[in-house]
Amino acid sequence: MGALEEAHLAAAVAAACACEEEEDDLELLGGEAEPAAAEDDAMEPAVRALLVGLGEDERREGLRRTPKRVAKAFRDGTRGYRQKVKDIVQGALFPEVGVDKRTGSAGGTGGQVVVRDIELFSYCESCLLPFSIQCHVGYVPSGGRVVGLSKLSRVSDMFAKRLQNPQRLANEVCSALHASIQPAGVAVAMQCWHIPLPENLECKTLQGWIKTSHASRSGVFEGESSTLWSDFLALLKFRGIDMDVGNHSAYIPWCPLRSHEVPLSNWHCKKNSNNGMVSAVTSMLLSLGEDPLRKELLGTPQRYVQWLMKFRVCNVDVKLNGFTLGNNVSAYERPGGGTADHGSIRSELHLPFCAQCEHHLLPFYGVVHIGYFDDGSGEGIDRSHFQALVHFYGCKLQVQERMTRQIAEAVYSVSHNGAMVVVEAYHSCMISRGVEKIRSNTATIAVLGQFLTDPSAKACFLQSVLDTAGSAV
Amino acid sequence: MGALEEAHLAAAVAAACACEEEEDDLELLGGEAEPAAAEDDAMEPAVRALLVGLGEDERREGLRRTPKRVAKAFRDGTRGYRQKVKDIVQGALFPEVGVDKRTGSAGGTGGQVVVRDIELFSYCESCLLPFSIQCHVGYVPSGGRVVGLSKLSRVSDMFAKRLQNPQRLANEVCSALHASIQPAGVAVAMQCWHIPLPENLECKTLQGWIKTSHASRSGVFEGESSTLWSDFLALLKFRGIDMDVGNHSAYIPWCPLRSHEVPLSNWHCKKNSNNGMVSAVTSMLLSLGEDPLRKELLGTPQRYVQWLMKFRVCNVDVKLNGFTLGNNVSAYERPGGGTADHGSIRSELHLPFCAQCEHHLLPFYGVVHIGYFDDGSGEGIDRSHFQALVHFYGCKLQVQERMTRQIAEAVYSVSHNGAMVVVEAYHSCMISRGVEKIRSNTATIAVLGQFLTDPSAKACFLQSVLDTAGSAV
Repeated sequence: MGALEEAHLAAAVAAACACEEEEDDLELLGGEAEPAAAEDDAMEPAVRALLVGLGEDERREGLRRTPKRVAKAFRDGTRGYRQKVKDIVQGALFPEVGVDKRTGSAGGTGGQVVVRDIELFSYCESCLLPFSIQCHVGYVPSGGRVVGLSKLSRVSDMFAKRLQNPQRLANEVCSALHASIQPAGVAVAMQCWHIPLPENLECKTLQGWIKTSHASRSGVFEGESSTLWSDFLALLKFRGIDMDVGNHSAYIPWCPLRSHEVPLSNWHCKKNSNNGMVSAVTSMLLSLGEDPLRKELLGTPQRYVQWLMKFRVCNVDVKLNGFTLGNNVSAYERPGGGTADHGSIRSELHLPFCAQCEHHLLPFYGVVHIGYFDDGSGEGIDRSHFQALVHFYGCKLQVQERMTRQIAEAVYSVSHNGAMVVVEAYHSCMISRGVEKIRSNTATIAVLGQFLTDPSAKACFLQSVLDTAGSAV
Repeated sequence: MGALEEAHLAAAVAAACACEEEEDDLELLGGEAEPAAAEDDAMEPAVRALLVGLGEDERREGLRRTPKRVAKAFRDGTRGYRQKVKDIVQGALFPEVGVDKRTGSAGGTGGQVVVRDIELFSYCESCLLPFSIQCHVGYVPSGGRVVGLSKLSRVSDMFAKRLQNPQRLANEVCSALHASIQPAGVAVAMQCWHIPLPENLECKTLQGWIKTSHASRSGVFEGESSTLWSDFLALLKFRGIDMDVGNHSAYIPWCPLRSHEVPLSNWHCKKNSNNGMVSAVTSMLLSLGEDPLRKELLGTPQRYVQWLMKFRVCNVDVKLNGFTLGNNVSAYERPGGGTADHGSIRSELHLPFCAQCEHHLLPFYGVVHIGYFDDGSGEGIDRSHFQALVHFYGCKLQVQERMTRQIAEAVYSVSHNGAMVVVEAYHSCMISRGVEKIRSNTATIAVLGQFLTDPSAKACFLQSVLDTAGSAV
């Protein structure tokens, strides 16, 4: 072993020690006596197998603790398997004398209680990717009892923290609340959003997302003529929520990986390359206590691997040098007419991307804005070339900071006067893990060349992004 | 003891046993080895003293476990006192080789990383009421290291979960991140909202809320000419966030209870009535490990008691019977002209209210919509009378379900044909406790008389609310 290698090893060991405490977030530990060790032990090798299958070096710094992190996040995201409705609702039923004074449900006052806009996250049982939920829960009190409002949210969250299909989620929340509160009826409505395949992410608005609406109802909410159901829908409309739930009572396959999947039989042809990864995902399901042979989970490991493989290491390098300059880009003009002082600054804005966070194996997605100086010929680089560049640096295991810099450096290599890149992204790992900051959004900047030394050039580019921000993410 | 009393006692004991598990929410237990018992023991008697001071019967069903619940929620809401920045950040610093290739901060790429729209809740150190925060955190990496994105959110949350002043919160987040990440600089910007005094809650839009903006910056973000600070503000503008932070560097007293407070010297006159409550709140501060003599906390117990006393039991009963009918209410007309089929249905919409949740001693606030049938005289009841009714039933320790029914019954007592009430409210207890569902909003309905039997009358009233919903909460 050479001196250089020894030094590298020593540094790695030191880093490993420094990282010992990593991710021991108080918020994530949960209150349970975690029987984690054994189960996580089964999950970590599975994640390592996935990394290897992606062509990654599992020992490189950014990935070294990814198996531990993924195992922990996955266990946290499926904690609903280890919770019970009884523990949540029991004791949170309050006698509400007034409700009892008259006969009939809700004390004869035709009343109902609705908690609207409960934001949840769940995991799609078809592909193991997270999906987001806007959940609305109502019930009609009976027997002179009301339930603590937060319990409607907690019970919904409990079922969301399992591998789910949106309609089953609605049904499970409805029947669990009905059984535990024993009201005159329960109404559940939810809108769900599933990330599309990376290639279907649309520019600017992320409109490629798959959206469905689902409902489930019991007791007095049932039946075509239930006026309580009409009232429930009216209360949702007050918040701008228009439920189109007529045709979604069945278990519709909504997962985009189901409609684009490789037929199961074809997987045998790919056996050598992907079989290890599929087995690894199957063992992850087993360690959650799930049955991989359950009808809805058949093919799930294959679909998750199919998704991951979209982000596998690509050893081809992409350079802009070879690209021809097209005419398809116009110089930035200040709003209200008048060319900018920096007439030679060009920009390509709102280029969509979807990457996979190398720390958590979860997607982050958003838009890239690129600014550069043209070469004096007055011609810019065609947008499609930038989109290819973004795809190359985005569609892999990444971190946003590195991706931003890499794109900036690639652009700088052909636009020698200067390059500037802004990336705006939502991180599923910020949402579906313990932090659960649903609306938080991360922006990164990299600035090179003249943009670094000329603040007005930088400001000019940022203004061009701002002018189009209304139509953005 | 009579047979009736014995039966009552037996029922109470049974209820107590059934409630034994109450609020043992897994989500709330936290991962810490809680040294809770002794401290909560000090807090629960304090809460009981507050209930007695409010003229309440602390043994009535809705309040029986309120001391336990408040103690737990208060401890959870101030868990930041028992967390350390080191534990959160340590080990989440990732070497990012590319950032190191060039000299200067962010590897010479003029870059920064900004997490925008982190939603937080904190407690105002001036009055102990929760306030909400939209937090934005940026930093410029240095030394070839980036920090896990979620840590920016977690560190911010840690300081928010203490008794705070908005500007100090911004400063503490900034300096803690600077010390722990050792970047080239940290930028923190936040917008904060504080609930106003109940009497200042405005109709429809809740515009009475006190809003302030605060910023704190270190390193390369400092100075008037910092272009990195300009970039940071530009990235916020992309999300529609316009920071007006020029004049908020000082610790401005923003708490509405500070500007309307009873001078401290006057409290001696009230000694007999409120002194016990003030002592109780002081003991709550002590049990958090806070120093009640810290400058910023002087007067806090008095202010919190002053707030609570706005919701004290009022033994006067309010009836609409005595009110004269005015001309100030017009019959509901369908949008697009044309009177409704139910010409005699009248409505008073968006009556603001602020109540105090009897389960958590935290405010819930929103609007009340009232529908009723006029008496045939063609004259309605003046809006001010309804507002007085809402104030009477709202401004006390309440639960939303009961308040809805009580208002409906009061209206029904004068409008014998029918009465219908919808209450829409945000509950601080749904937000600042463990659930943290910031956008969730609860709607309750009570329906009496002809509204119960005539679905079209009910639909007509709900439509009138919907038609004005755009301008509502």
